Amino acid sequence: MRLATLTSGGDCPGLNAVIRGIVRTASAEYGSTVVGYLDGWVGLMEDRRIDLYDDAFIDSILLRGGTILGTGRLHPDKFKAGIDTIKANMDDAGIDALIAIGGEGTLKGAKWLSDNGIPVVGVPKTIDNDVAATDYTFGFDTAVSVATDAIDRLHTTAESHNRILIVEVMGRHVGWIALHAGMAGGAHYTVIPEDPFDIADICKAMERRFQMGEKYGIIVVAEGAIPKEGTMDAGLGEEDEFGHKTFNGMGQIIADEIKRRLGYDVRTTVLGHIQRGGTPTAYDRVLATRYGVHAARAAHEGNFDTCVALHGEDIDLVPLESAVAHLKTVPEHRYKTARSMFG
Amino acid sequence: MRLATLTSGGDCPGLNAVIRGIVRTASAEYGSTVVGYLDGWVGLMEDRRIDLYDDAFIDSILLRGGTILGTGRLHPDKFKAGIDTIKANMDDAGIDALIAIGGEGTLKGAKWLSDNGIPVVGVPKTIDNDVAATDYTFGFDTAVSVATDAIDRLHTTAESHNRILIVEVMGRHVGWIALHAGMAGGAHYTVIPEDPFDIADICKAMERRFQMGEKYGIIVVAEGAIPKEGTMDAGLGEEDEFGHKTFNGMGQIIADEIKRRLGYDVRTTVLGHIQRGGTPTAYDRVLATRYGVHAARAAHEGNFDTCVALHGEDIDLVPLESAVAHLKTVPEHRYKTARSMFG
Amino acid sequence: MRLATLTSGGDCPGLNAVIRGIVRTASAEYGSTVVGYLDGWVGLMEDRRIDLYDDAFIDSILLRGGTILGTGRLHPDKFKAGIDTIKANMDDAGIDALIAIGGEGTLKGAKWLSDNGIPVVGVPKTIDNDVAATDYTFGFDTAVSVATDAIDRLHTTAESHNRILIVEVMGRHVGWIALHAGMAGGAHYTVIPEDPFDIADICKAMERRFQMGEKYGIIVVAEGAIPKEGTMDAGLGEEDEFGHKTFNGMGQIIADEIKRRLGYDVRTTVLGHIQRGGTPTAYDRVLATRYGVHAARAAHEGNFDTCVALHGEDIDLVPLESAVAHLKTVPEHRYKTARSMFG
Amino acid sequence: MRLATLTSGGDCPGLNAVIRGIVRTASAEYGSTVVGYLDGWVGLMEDRRIDLYDDAFIDSILLRGGTILGTGRLHPDKFKAGIDTIKANMDDAGIDALIAIGGEGTLKGAKWLSDNGIPVVGVPKTIDNDVAATDYTFGFDTAVSVATDAIDRLHTTAESHNRILIVEVMGRHVGWIALHAGMAGGAHYTVIPEDPFDIADICKAMERRFQMGEKYGIIVVAEGAIPKEGTMDAGLGEEDEFGHKTFNGMGQIIADEIKRRLGYDVRTTVLGHIQRGGTPTAYDRVLATRYGVHAARAAHEGNFDTCVALHGEDIDLVPLESAVAHLKTVPEHRYKTARSMFG
Repeated sequence: MRLATLTSGGDCPGLNAVIRGIVRTASAEYGSTVVGYLDGWVGLMEDRRIDLYDDAFIDSILLRGGTILGTGRLHPDKFKAGIDTIKANMDDAGIDALIAIGGEGTLKGAKWLSDNGIPVVGVPKTIDNDVAATDYTFGFDTAVSVATDAIDRLHTTAESHNRILIVEVMGRHVGWIALHAGMAGGAHYTVIPEDPFDIADICKAMERRFQMGEKYGIIVVAEGAIPKEGTMDAGLGEEDEFGHKTFNGMGQIIADEIKRRLGYDVRTTVLGHIQRGGTPTAYDRVLATRYGVHAARAAHEGNFDTCVALHGEDIDLVPLESAVAHLKTVPEHRYKTARSMFG
Repeated sequence: MRLATLTSGGDCPGLNAVIRGIVRTASAEYGSTVVGYLDGWVGLMEDRRIDLYDDAFIDSILLRGGTILGTGRLHPDKFKAGIDTIKANMDDAGIDALIAIGGEGTLKGAKWLSDNGIPVVGVPKTIDNDVAATDYTFGFDTAVSVATDAIDRLHTTAESHNRILIVEVMGRHVGWIALHAGMAGGAHYTVIPEDPFDIADICKAMERRFQMGEKYGIIVVAEGAIPKEGTMDAGLGEEDEFGHKTFNGMGQIIADEIKRRLGYDVRTTVLGHIQRGGTPTAYDRVLATRYGVHAARAAHEGNFDTCVALHGEDIDLVPLESAVAHLKTVPEHRYKTARSMFG
Repeated sequence: MRLATLTSGGDCPGLNAVIRGIVRTASAEYGSTVVGYLDGWVGLMEDRRIDLYDDAFIDSILLRGGTILGTGRLHPDKFKAGIDTIKANMDDAGIDALIAIGGEGTLKGAKWLSDNGIPVVGVPKTIDNDVAATDYTFGFDTAVSVATDAIDRLHTTAESHNRILIVEVMGRHVGWIALHAGMAGGAHYTVIPEDPFDIADICKAMERRFQMGEKYGIIVVAEGAIPKEGTMDAGLGEEDEFGHKTFNGMGQIIADEIKRRLGYDVRTTVLGHIQRGGTPTAYDRVLATRYGVHAARAAHEGNFDTCVALHGEDIDLVPLESAVAHLKTVPEHRYKTARSMFG
Repeated sequence: MRLATLTSGGDCPGLNAVIRGIVRTASAEYGSTVVGYLDGWVGLMEDRRIDLYDDAFIDSILLRGGTILGTGRLHPDKFKAGIDTIKANMDDAGIDALIAIGGEGTLKGAKWLSDNGIPVVGVPKTIDNDVAATDYTFGFDTAVSVATDAIDRLHTTAESHNRILIVEVMGRHVGWIALHAGMAGGAHYTVIPEDPFDIADICKAMERRFQMGEKYGIIVVAEGAIPKEGTMDAGLGEEDEFGHKTFNGMGQIIADEIKRRLGYDVRTTVLGHIQRGGTPTAYDRVLATRYGVHAARAAHEGNFDTCVALHGEDIDLVPLESAVAHLKTVPEHRYKTARSMFG
């Protein structure tokens, strides 16, 4: 058998571990070969690809952040219009099946290919952990670890009393990274997109700490956090083309507002892309490797139109459709548990 | 309500996070108080205890390895003989329920207390991840991370060709740490207790690497690894009182045997206790905190004779009995997947 | 003998290691006792102090960020006006000598006390490494390590071509952290306050990378970086009371300007206070411990009006005056060396 | 100009950073080219070499442990007998000067080449920090950091009272790694080769801790530690060809003896090669890069028969001879300072 794989969408630690898992399994368990298309769908369309051998190079990519295949963006219309090119390219290269590694958009594309007759297995990739069909996605544990390390470092503040430290973490639509990093780091308040925040409540929590003699407070803010309607200056945020308000630099916005209301010294750390780069944690390497192994097996066993997923201790296959069905947001009971730890 | 908690058995990163989770939840969700018995069952028997307040100190223990309550060992006979003392001590202190945090032995003791009329909730603690009733236990991810860091560092070897590096990790009865660290670290062979090793197979794997031009090989060895019968010098190992062979320093034994057979330079790293000490990973802090929260809730809601457990994304309660029913060993299919990655 | 010590000014990993070094040395080498004044000069003025015993607690602070003594700010006028109170407090407590741990301002205060008859030894503390009298200051290595870890994580970027990543690090007046972190992290451009930057030169360097086929560029920006006169929009920056321009969020300012000029995607990470918090590196713990040991020895041997300093492999004593004589900036030849590595 | 470089001897984090520093400086400052001989002197003799370009690959090696050039061993007699071959190979390849990166043996070889008419600059490489001509060598800080991380993790021990934990670190002839890691990690005793140990003194120190209510003790042992004459069982150790006693597994030997004498539980961690592998610390990357830059400059400026060295904040050139003159051992005053911290 001859497999192809590609990576698409944003950076996520563990992509290379998936690729290595696919190549190794194809070789060790089935004697198959694997090609990698470069720059995501773009490379598939333009037939740019490399052979991936089960060699020392593949062995060495396990720890590496990023993806050796690159990623790229292609407009869905162009993508769909190119279906014949894609099929021809895959035929010419003698490809029997495609393993697509990517986020929601990529898996939707994979589903469309599958519906149009191409044998596809999907591997879910999102640093945000927002894919409903799987317990956890790789990259998430690394992002949480990076954010937690940062919070750990803030838990000493000799400089002054009544200082507030804000850490803005990733999560435009869901608060999983903020939730876990806030809990792991012992943050005193965590703001997630799923629960619009009341700035007065945050201020009250900080005041309470200082009244009890604490010297500082740490607040974790998901970048997609939004104020509860009517609670902050109406001037904030910008309307997008659908009339929804969006906010840039929410960590700094909250910092400024707390400073304005309480007069305390507030400092902001914006972690940005360091959460999605670099060596994956051991957890993410194991999960990503297992995803790769099971995707390669699924392809060899003809289980197409599926997506690998973690359920408990096991890697299962779910219908590709279900992987993109809806965004997994932080459920209320998890946020309630987090709140009990705010203190 | 007035809860008591205690920790018992070996070190495990995350114990303090569980304690903090219990104290915070009791205070924030129920307005209850918590006392901690010192040195495990011993402190319960001798009525040595401290009040655990929901304060800055409890907040600060989240990152700390070890346990602020200490642990201790008590012979089961003494323990059982002391049931009346235990009941009296708990009555005198006004304790309504006990949360016991510990491994197999501790949970068996907890079950026995429960059967004898004491309201108990258990929290499983084992660095080895060998409790069947839960997907994962806290401390395991930290141990795997420490071992993986060590393996990562060995993946450069400028000094000489055909060198073999052995890392002995914890796991006297089960190979979970070896399995995950070996997969995360990209080891070229992993030996676990569940699958007695054939030294000839290990040697063959190393030879194959060197024949393909690789300069080195890394082997992860669980401390409880045992040779397949008839495959290594009969003089090795010692018989215990039941006539079973036990081996000390299995990493070094394998190193010596490879050196004897192949003549290569073999170096051994014995990680020892650094795997069970120190700051827990973000993953373990979240898991341990959630265990603490749910154990406190179970106690307040009268769900006794239970044990908290992770299933998928959720923390559940399982019968205390099931938590100690049998050892969770590495299943064959997981070891097969690992083997496909040896390369 | 009876020593006193205090810490003053901003957070700096290693402060507790100095305190531990003082207490241990006083006890082990001289059988002396040590008291710690709380909250810097404020505690000295208000006679708030604790006894520091050579015990398990002191042993445990080695790894801890922050300072167990707290710090505080006191206006120089108030400080000077309080000299009689200070003397009376020290007399009443039976203090023979004071070891002041702090930055430029603190050491100036220490010098003034020394000139007014109080036996003082200074320990230089600055995360910025800008004290001329010593080769290196503790805390600096930790800050550089934190910033380097962040840069390491950015060296993978799968998401898109021609992306520029900016890391803003500490250094309002000197560029040591940026210089070292940029060199250790393999940044492609580093901007320091000592050498006003030409935005056109930065843009050119990024363009050159992309023309050579590189996918991304990393720029390290010291927070105190300033544009070369006439090179950026005059609207930028604010005038302070002396008519000097100051800039807030220089990383973002540069990001915006590069985006405006070149149209590339530019992302910013602002590390902020995570550079000055948390566990010190091994290097900083050794340096800080040695500072503490030698300060305690200097006090016992009557070498007052001095400051400990690192010269090569040795800890020396320099006149307290010299420690505050001038700011140690990055010399031209060091920046030239850094530039050769930009690539 | 056309430079050659090679690496020789044991692994040491930072080797690749030196190579990168040489290549970048040659290219950026002088427009020169660089070739790398493979496998140390062996490659020089066999004329195996690669061109090292100032490109993305060279940029990427900064963080990598090991050496991209490999190393090898060559008997001094063979090496000297091959001088004409070496000269011919360098002439044929148009090499103007050689930068030799290595330890004592390598630098002696470099000196011999220099004395025989080959223009040579040396870069000292030893993880043990035992080169007298320089304040510090790269790789040392990384080894100390790895050992310190391990010690940090042992500072929690919930399992049992009166447990002793031993960490065996590298250092066959000098105790620098043990000295610094012991001080950074807050070990309770550190044993170095320079000061033969009295097992009774170690036991007394541990007893004293337990009598004062401490639960555990941590001992750092340099692998080359030797017992004071007459203090331990004469049966220990083996005589080498010169009649000197050598000991293998000194950590375990000390552990066994303490257990025999005191009856306590003693556990040993042997760090082994993880101290010399993996990503260098920020400190080592800066030092190694600067070594590379200055070695390249020395070669271009005709300063041959020299070796780069760190003195205080600056990189200097010292006579190549002085770099191998004598082993830098831990001076008595440094060990005295360390002892004051044992506690």
